[in-house]
Amino acid sequence: MQQSQTRFTISTQGQALYEFTREVADWISDTGIETGLLTLFCRHTSASLLINENAAPAVKRDLLRWLSKAAPEGDTYEHDDEGPDDMPAHIRTMLTGASLSIPVADGRMVLGTWQGIYLAEHRAMPHRREIVAHLLGERVSEV
Amino acid sequence: MQQSQTRFTISTQGQALYEFTREVADWISDTGIETGLLTLFCRHTSASLLINENAAPAVKRDLLRWLSKAAPEGDTYEHDDEGPDDMPAHIRTMLTGASLSIPVADGRMVLGTWQGIYLAEHRAMPHRREIVAHLLGERVSEV
Amino acid sequence: MQQSQTRFTISTQGQALYEFTREVADWISDTGIETGLLTLFCRHTSASLLINENAAPAVKRDLLRWLSKAAPEGDTYEHDDEGPDDMPAHIRTMLTGASLSIPVADGRMVLGTWQGIYLAEHRAMPHRREIVAHLLGERVSEV
Repeated sequence: MQQSQTRFTISTQGQALYEFTREVADWISDTGIETGLLTLFCRHTSASLLINENAAPAVKRDLLRWLSKAAPEGDTYEHDDEGPDDMPAHIRTMLTGASLSIPVADGRMVLGTWQGIYLAEHRAMPHRREIVAHLLGERVSEV
Repeated sequence: MQQSQTRFTISTQGQALYEFTREVADWISDTGIETGLLTLFCRHTSASLLINENAAPAVKRDLLRWLSKAAPEGDTYEHDDEGPDDMPAHIRTMLTGASLSIPVADGRMVLGTWQGIYLAEHRAMPHRREIVAHLLGERVSEV
Repeated sequence: MQQSQTRFTISTQGQALYEFTREVADWISDTGIETGLLTLFCRHTSASLLINENAAPAVKRDLLRWLSKAAPEGDTYEHDDEGPDDMPAHIRTMLTGASLSIPVADGRMVLGTWQGIYLAEHRAMPHRREIVAHLLGERVSEV
């Protein structure tokens, strides 16, 4: 049993879903681990991680629209000193979460056909977001 | 330290919460692992995993009603070519999540008395849903 | 590779976010594990775990206000025999989740500067909440 860690940095340009499935898959290949558990962790309170449809771009826009409507900028928040998009960003982060856990088999994440891994940026200004990846497992395919 | 993986398949018949706590518990027993970490991962973008009350069936219905109201079928979505229940299903999946992490002690998940594990089906038509289970741990009770 | 488990008990006094980042950090230090994976699991269906801003107290209040508004006590629920705050508590638990996964590096959780770990209590009456912590890893810093 062995483990490996790395960090992915994503430069964001406003509210959007940024896919990084390929980058994670490549890193897993590099580690040589065939069977195990991948954990992704987002080190921020106004950006989050989620898994969703990777085919139709309209799905991503609808997901963001839903979050914008559920926790809108126009609402009255007690915490408003960091701009109108700050408190909505914290709420949207709470709803989507900071971590993802994905088993690995045969050297690949066990994602379904339509699943992509996204960083969800909830702030309007450009940010540099950091995601820690942790992989625990073995270099053998059978468990 | 050792690990084990399996897949649970659940045939769904429309929007509902499908409990599979017992199936997971039985599989953990079979592995012989006494202390460790269980991960469950749902391979879909219109069905999700959640833990909630396992006693009163009315709770399950209220949870589903809340999700139906929060992301209703009647709303206008840009992505609507797969039916009126498709985009709401993606949103409800985003809100509830694809993975669960549950420690194992003395050969059992450390679930509270009232906690059950559910697959949440968000589509109206019957589906065959696949959940990957990964267990990492040891055959000894003390750590 | 080794693992360690413990339980944190938090006495709650009504709906609020109770931070216990320090307690978790101290326990990780005690285990001597330098590199690994931490899992926190909340054994309840009306309290949950979340990571959010640890600086401005107003953020915590705004998060709770949002949850109160999203799943309000005044709504009509089929399940209402355990009090008006019970079903809203189950819904808020569903939205925020029972488990957190956080990588550990150099003996510390890889939390961002502004991230704190919170137990979210969703019931009005005092409760004794139990969180299971599981840590898997090694006593070496490099992986």
